[in-house]
Amino acid sequence: MPYFDAASSAPLHPVARQALLASLDEGWADPARLYREGRRAALLLDAAREAAAEAVGCRPDELVFTSSGTRAVHSAVSGALSGRRRVGRHLVLSAVEHSSVLHSAAALEASGGTFTEVPVGRTGAVDPSAYGQSLRADTALACLQSANHEVGTEQPVAETAEICADAGVPLLVDAAQSLGWGPVPGRWSLLAASAHKWGGPAGVGLLAVRKGVRFAPRGPADERESGRAAGFENIPAIVAAAASLRAVRAEATAEAVRLRALVDRIRAAVGNLVPDVEVVGDPERRLPHLVTFSCLYVDGETLLHELDRAGYSVSSGSSCTSSTLTPSHVLKAMGVLTEGNIRVSLPSGTTREEVDGFLGVLPGVVAEVRQRLGAPVSAAASPTPRASLVVDALGRRCPIPVIELAKVIGEVPVGGTVTVLSDDEAARLDIPAWCAMREQEYVGEEEAEHGSAYVVRRLL
Amino acid sequence: MPYFDAASSAPLHPVARQALLASLDEGWADPARLYREGRRAALLLDAAREAAAEAVGCRPDELVFTSSGTRAVHSAVSGALSGRRRVGRHLVLSAVEHSSVLHSAAALEASGGTFTEVPVGRTGAVDPSAYGQSLRADTALACLQSANHEVGTEQPVAETAEICADAGVPLLVDAAQSLGWGPVPGRWSLLAASAHKWGGPAGVGLLAVRKGVRFAPRGPADERESGRAAGFENIPAIVAAAASLRAVRAEATAEAVRLRALVDRIRAAVGNLVPDVEVVGDPERRLPHLVTFSCLYVDGETLLHELDRAGYSVSSGSSCTSSTLTPSHVLKAMGVLTEGNIRVSLPSGTTREEVDGFLGVLPGVVAEVRQRLGAPVSAAASPTPRASLVVDALGRRCPIPVIELAKVIGEVPVGGTVTVLSDDEAARLDIPAWCAMREQEYVGEEEAEHGSAYVVRRLL
Repeated sequence: MPYFDAASSAPLHPVARQALLASLDEGWADPARLYREGRRAALLLDAAREAAAEAVGCRPDELVFTSSGTRAVHSAVSGALSGRRRVGRHLVLSAVEHSSVLHSAAALEASGGTFTEVPVGRTGAVDPSAYGQSLRADTALACLQSANHEVGTEQPVAETAEICADAGVPLLVDAAQSLGWGPVPGRWSLLAASAHKWGGPAGVGLLAVRKGVRFAPRGPADERESGRAAGFENIPAIVAAAASLRAVRAEATAEAVRLRALVDRIRAAVGNLVPDVEVVGDPERRLPHLVTFSCLYVDGETLLHELDRAGYSVSSGSSCTSSTLTPSHVLKAMGVLTEGNIRVSLPSGTTREEVDGFLGVLPGVVAEVRQRLGAPVSAAASPTPRASLVVDALGRRCPIPVIELAKVIGEVPVGGTVTVLSDDEAARLDIPAWCAMREQEYVGEEEAEHGSAYVVRRLL
Repeated sequence: MPYFDAASSAPLHPVARQALLASLDEGWADPARLYREGRRAALLLDAAREAAAEAVGCRPDELVFTSSGTRAVHSAVSGALSGRRRVGRHLVLSAVEHSSVLHSAAALEASGGTFTEVPVGRTGAVDPSAYGQSLRADTALACLQSANHEVGTEQPVAETAEICADAGVPLLVDAAQSLGWGPVPGRWSLLAASAHKWGGPAGVGLLAVRKGVRFAPRGPADERESGRAAGFENIPAIVAAAASLRAVRAEATAEAVRLRALVDRIRAAVGNLVPDVEVVGDPERRLPHLVTFSCLYVDGETLLHELDRAGYSVSSGSSCTSSTLTPSHVLKAMGVLTEGNIRVSLPSGTTREEVDGFLGVLPGVVAEVRQRLGAPVSAAASPTPRASLVVDALGRRCPIPVIELAKVIGEVPVGGTVTVLSDDEAARLDIPAWCAMREQEYVGEEEAEHGSAYVVRRLL
């Protein structure tokens, strides 16, 4: 039963399991204590710190272990902002950062600070010079992920770090998705990562703060981990995290080549096998193991359920699968289709047979869901075209508004318009995205009595 | 090699190890995901929450898992203060709380709030009515540990909770040291605990917040664990924590009786075997497995080293063993001797032979350290008594100032005084404590050119 959601959490690497078991007996005591059990725990912690620092490319005394990647990001942002509060309270981040960064920015704003979101292009990458232009005299910190967690696009971290360094602004790199594949290049100042993304255990994050970066931990004082990560150290898990990072790095080059080929296979095949599909993200500058595509006229949640029934575990950035019913902010920032969204992220060791099995079932699953939702098979011309049509999709969720639009577009003449009434947030993204895919004209959005009216002009 | 520091961290319970191993394969995925690996992880998390809630005595939806006991306390204090900020920004706590509570109070003060420390008596317990008198109209939260981590004294939690409930002030109980022994009684509002204290793995804390208690999580938003504990859930460790809590509870009654008898044995024997020793804490209302005593004329760090060499791992609240050189705030608040302090906390399964072995080596170790430091064997009268004497112990650390005092007290006549000049912080506590033990009069402290002058009058 293939698991294709490594970007959420990777299964425990055999080396992590082995190291965890070995250190359960040696690493349970308080490393701050003077007796032998404490000294043994401290030795394990020191060795893990050295191994992790080497993999990150920093000094051991620049690295602390946190209880998660999210905590590493929260501490990094709050500590760096606090350390540079005399400079100002402005934060710069890309529009496609992980929620832990976005929520840190929101917390800053709630306490009176400000932030600037740097937009991304259609592949999901920021432009370094545009990023640089958002740096201000009062910018205390800049944040940029090494690679995007939803679409896999690599960000120009080294170039951006250079620009930030020249401007005297520390750059925090969220390396959660990429650290297992290799160190982050360039003159970054802070780095955060999460062990369970590379096959380490849950409960371990990394926070690196380069010497010379002003950093003032927030919250109640705690003497552990240089005051940067409160709470008793989870040494067995830390040892397992460091050992597995070293192990995945040793395999990374070969495995990246292998998985990149499998992902290329998916990227190429999906468009041929499934009609009305958009593969998103940068085809080249990307994580080796991750691909995301969106299927018109399908809702993500049903698709996930059907793929799960067929034995494939994948995730989705569609609004229908999120507790908040808000479509993925990443896909939104990229301006691509959010409906029927599927992210495939292959764990190490995924075979070609597993990928081919997935490609074998996908077309049938998508077709079945589309049929169930009454999606259009082809836009047959209506015998009595009307110059304009209004489709009432109020109260109906993604992907129904787009399905209804697609069904009637053939009923107006070329040059005529279809107006879709919808109160679903996803429609605002998906109707323009459908127009771009279908080469129809998106005229715009108007306020309506309920929800919005989206106007589309038929061009073909 | 007996390990007698269970109050710092207990070795992993066999049930914890077993549960951890079993759930490494089942609990690594994201419990928020819809596919089978996610559903399996969510089931494990739900079952662990139910088991832990039953042991705590709360509803499952009142309990979240944090990454440590420290984090549970930090979140409890900040969330409760924030939830009741309209009431005021005043916090009440006992003077002998764990550092995580004290540091939370300091963080409150740094941000403009205030707190009141309720003093404790010589056994380390608060008086519930005195505690009640410190509650004010603007008190947002009260904190009281279930039992003290350094001396084992149980606090009157149920009575204090009653008083707080009547006053409409929520009471947070830090149950880190006692939860393995049984649920916390009474009408408490919030409770924090730490799994590695009961033999669970590191990396898991519990935070219970009773329904109806106003609580507003602080820091960047995160949807996991009801928004009260940011970061990816460490499900294998959570499962192990819950399973081991249930297991230690099943053994708790019988083990408490057994360990209580061993501790009584230590309490009785230490005074007979070692001269000039003070056993501290309540002899009856106490944790079953913990006893603390202080030895005059010995420094804690040397004592720990020698006991470690002899095969016994214990801890100390003496200033000499702390990185900050500040004597234990607990012993200080109790007004007892801080020098030569030893805490013995027996893990489950400790045998009478191990305890007797410890009692066998202790007198020799203490005598040897005293001899090395030149401690007085007996206060022999000087042939030419002088009415008063000044001892210059400037620049010398605990226990030297007390040793020098004890050496010369016999050289002044009854009614005469000895003045000790010292710049060691511990002297302020230990010279009065020595006077109480030796039945000499502590006259008081005067400012001196360097440090302080401590005046003692010979009575015997």
